[in-house]
Amino acid sequence: MNIKIVFYVLGGLLRLLGALMVIPLGVAYYYGENLTPFLVSIIITVVTGLILLSYKTDEEWMRKEGFAIVALGWLAAAVFGAIPFMLDGISPLNSLFESMSAFTTTGSTILTDIESHPKGILFWRSMMQWLGGMGIIVLFIAILPKLGVAGRQLFRAEAPGPTEDKLKPRIRETAKILWMVYFVISFVEVVALLLAGLSLYDAVTHTFTTMACGGFSPYGLSVEAFNSPLVEFIIVFFMFISGANFALHYRAIYVDKDFLLKDDEFRFYTALTLAATGLLTLLLYRDLGTGLFDSFRLSIFQVVSIMTTTGFATTDFNLWSESGKMVLLLVMFIGGCAGSTGGGIKVVRILMLLRHGRVELFKSLHPRAVRSVKFNNKNVPDEVINSIFSFVVIYLLIFISSALILSVLGTDIVTSITASIATLGNIGPGLNVVGPMGTFDPIPPLGKLILIANMWIGGLEVYTVIVLFTPEFWNK
Amino acid sequence: MNIKIVFYVLGGLLRLLGALMVIPLGVAYYYGENLTPFLVSIIITVVTGLILLSYKTDEEWMRKEGFAIVALGWLAAAVFGAIPFMLDGISPLNSLFESMSAFTTTGSTILTDIESHPKGILFWRSMMQWLGGMGIIVLFIAILPKLGVAGRQLFRAEAPGPTEDKLKPRIRETAKILWMVYFVISFVEVVALLLAGLSLYDAVTHTFTTMACGGFSPYGLSVEAFNSPLVEFIIVFFMFISGANFALHYRAIYVDKDFLLKDDEFRFYTALTLAATGLLTLLLYRDLGTGLFDSFRLSIFQVVSIMTTTGFATTDFNLWSESGKMVLLLVMFIGGCAGSTGGGIKVVRILMLLRHGRVELFKSLHPRAVRSVKFNNKNVPDEVINSIFSFVVIYLLIFISSALILSVLGTDIVTSITASIATLGNIGPGLNVVGPMGTFDPIPPLGKLILIANMWIGGLEVYTVIVLFTPEFWNK
Repeated sequence: MNIKIVFYVLGGLLRLLGALMVIPLGVAYYYGENLTPFLVSIIITVVTGLILLSYKTDEEWMRKEGFAIVALGWLAAAVFGAIPFMLDGISPLNSLFESMSAFTTTGSTILTDIESHPKGILFWRSMMQWLGGMGIIVLFIAILPKLGVAGRQLFRAEAPGPTEDKLKPRIRETAKILWMVYFVISFVEVVALLLAGLSLYDAVTHTFTTMACGGFSPYGLSVEAFNSPLVEFIIVFFMFISGANFALHYRAIYVDKDFLLKDDEFRFYTALTLAATGLLTLLLYRDLGTGLFDSFRLSIFQVVSIMTTTGFATTDFNLWSESGKMVLLLVMFIGGCAGSTGGGIKVVRILMLLRHGRVELFKSLHPRAVRSVKFNNKNVPDEVINSIFSFVVIYLLIFISSALILSVLGTDIVTSITASIATLGNIGPGLNVVGPMGTFDPIPPLGKLILIANMWIGGLEVYTVIVLFTPEFWNK
Repeated sequence: MNIKIVFYVLGGLLRLLGALMVIPLGVAYYYGENLTPFLVSIIITVVTGLILLSYKTDEEWMRKEGFAIVALGWLAAAVFGAIPFMLDGISPLNSLFESMSAFTTTGSTILTDIESHPKGILFWRSMMQWLGGMGIIVLFIAILPKLGVAGRQLFRAEAPGPTEDKLKPRIRETAKILWMVYFVISFVEVVALLLAGLSLYDAVTHTFTTMACGGFSPYGLSVEAFNSPLVEFIIVFFMFISGANFALHYRAIYVDKDFLLKDDEFRFYTALTLAATGLLTLLLYRDLGTGLFDSFRLSIFQVVSIMTTTGFATTDFNLWSESGKMVLLLVMFIGGCAGSTGGGIKVVRILMLLRHGRVELFKSLHPRAVRSVKFNNKNVPDEVINSIFSFVVIYLLIFISSALILSVLGTDIVTSITASIATLGNIGPGLNVVGPMGTFDPIPPLGKLILIANMWIGGLEVYTVIVLFTPEFWNK
């Protein structure tokens, strides 16, 4: 591996990150808050970036460098993005937890009294999620296919017919288009939230974290703080949009409105959302005695929030009946669509697994029959199915291992299980201790490190990080 | 499908089942108990068998008939095996639950005060497990490969090199050999338990349920009733043996002692058992303050009991710390080896999934490299890996659906999850309400029906039952 190239690219990234910190600096200035945390952070980040940029080289990066750039790039962003938190008085481990949670658009928090922190810091916390969401879309649709891993394992799998779906052949072009879509939809959400009566600060910070399927709110009560059905439905709509494929949004906007509705993944995503919402509405109506409309309002918000891996809350679902919590627990394992800012296993993978199971069941009766899994009316190659399966196996293995370690460290079973999936799936809150009105702070330090790793691995589609830990990666 | 052939084979099965009921009749006679339940059951079962036998036909059975015979055969055995329970005053649903639990070697019980039932009835309960175990070994090693489903999906997967491992070419011959091995090992266990001080009744009933990886005990305290380390270690040894492949046992006894140790699955099975026991020993030592030997004694018994899907208990592990319970919960998803009497996902499938993940990880770095999954130094064909994956997907889907239904019916999350996996994996006890000293009786009737279906489906390797519910099965 050519480490110089990696340093060089990371240098550019840090310089950009330092420059972007000027925005929360401005917010802090506007609210008359202490500017030191951001000033110091900007200097440290930009200077480190410039030092790394001195490793300039003309060599081309290959697959291994690509993996290293993505994995270490996110890690570096989390480390330097944590500096303002540290200077705000949060411990280094907690700061890293919070910024990794931000950049991977997870939304799990270790803050116990959110409102006690300055508005500039909370703005930065939301803004990092928005930046992370941008990064994840481009990683998924533009970078991973270029790495080869994706052509084979992610992109073709999630959007067969790669030549059509590449949108534009080069990463830079694709990234520009996607960012434009991301930016336009974000702008529309800010306007909608302003019209619904939110302040500019609230509208922008919540748009940042909605669009990223992130889930951080500057309020301890999350979206419940506004207590407004209109605000909730606006956020539900934009969470749902953000949990769908941005390449499809591009097409739907510029090519053909029906494109979304013709996509197998989007249809399954919609069907799952409606089914889970319907079931949950009935359960809340039965168990909590809330009216039918309120049950629906709570249900659709929470199902969309968890399934898209956003993690906002409009109620403390820890207090729901066991059956309601069970629905949310299962939804945690689904996630958003491919090419969205949502995390999780992803809808398309679940769909492929189910279709594969159906085909194999047919084959057990007709062993000589030829039938393969279809996606958008095209046959899905076996190697794609294989890579989906191995993804899910590695995903579940990491989930199980981290849940086991948490429980060995003394955490109860439900907290261990939900904290692991909430971080690995980049969802945010779990149940019990780490419930929507709770915090990850009580998790022991080793557990926090494990969960930081979960967010990092889960946010970058598992392979990208895991290959760095195989001996083959470091062999010549 | 030729329903006549199915009737004819089921007729023979019921005639045999009725004849076998003479044994518990003898036990009831010996203890001076009411003979009516068995006399009536024998008459009903044998007469039904003779009526079905009148459908004699010379036609050969094909794949569809094979599936129907296996699935309906187990169902018929459970229905008729339940008659003695009903005549003992247990409700029909509970009786069916108990006998399905017996024939699928699950060991989940709805009995609340076990010792209040006659010895003859409890003997029959244990004996059904032993018969079920016999059936499962032969189903797995002899019948399923013949059905084709197995050549492709189960047998080749679990013991590559089918021509060698078929032992003898014809089902009848294979069955005879396997039963001889099963019988010989059972005999040795009875003798060992007698030498350890158990009564003949206790030795035989516990041997029945050990060999079948069943788990029923005539005592509410299960194996804790004896409070004897020697008895526990004997049972651990035989549970471990019963959880391994009986085709390998045959070879180890008659061909080459080292055969077991050279087998990848057996080695992984041993490694998993030791790792889980080691971890659990440390956790119990740390959390419960029991001495190191007692921690080990409790741990090895419970790990082997749950992993082989037997389900005996020497302690109420419901009272353990969360971390100890978590270890058992994870072990529930593993199961025994292929060709054993143990249920679950099966060790070989877990091993193949992990090796496949490893290969795919390597391929993500070297996309053009050719490397495939190995088992016992042979390449595993892709179609075998595919069928393992679809097995696991369907398995998890059934697990999730039944856990969801239970929780909608008002059961708490941990009980819902563990009751589902305990029945689908044919383990026996779960946690909370359905813990080792608890009972499945409090589960609502619809929940019990779901769990009966779980046992049936899980005990027969999923496909065998599930295909009956596909439209293709009933198409011409």
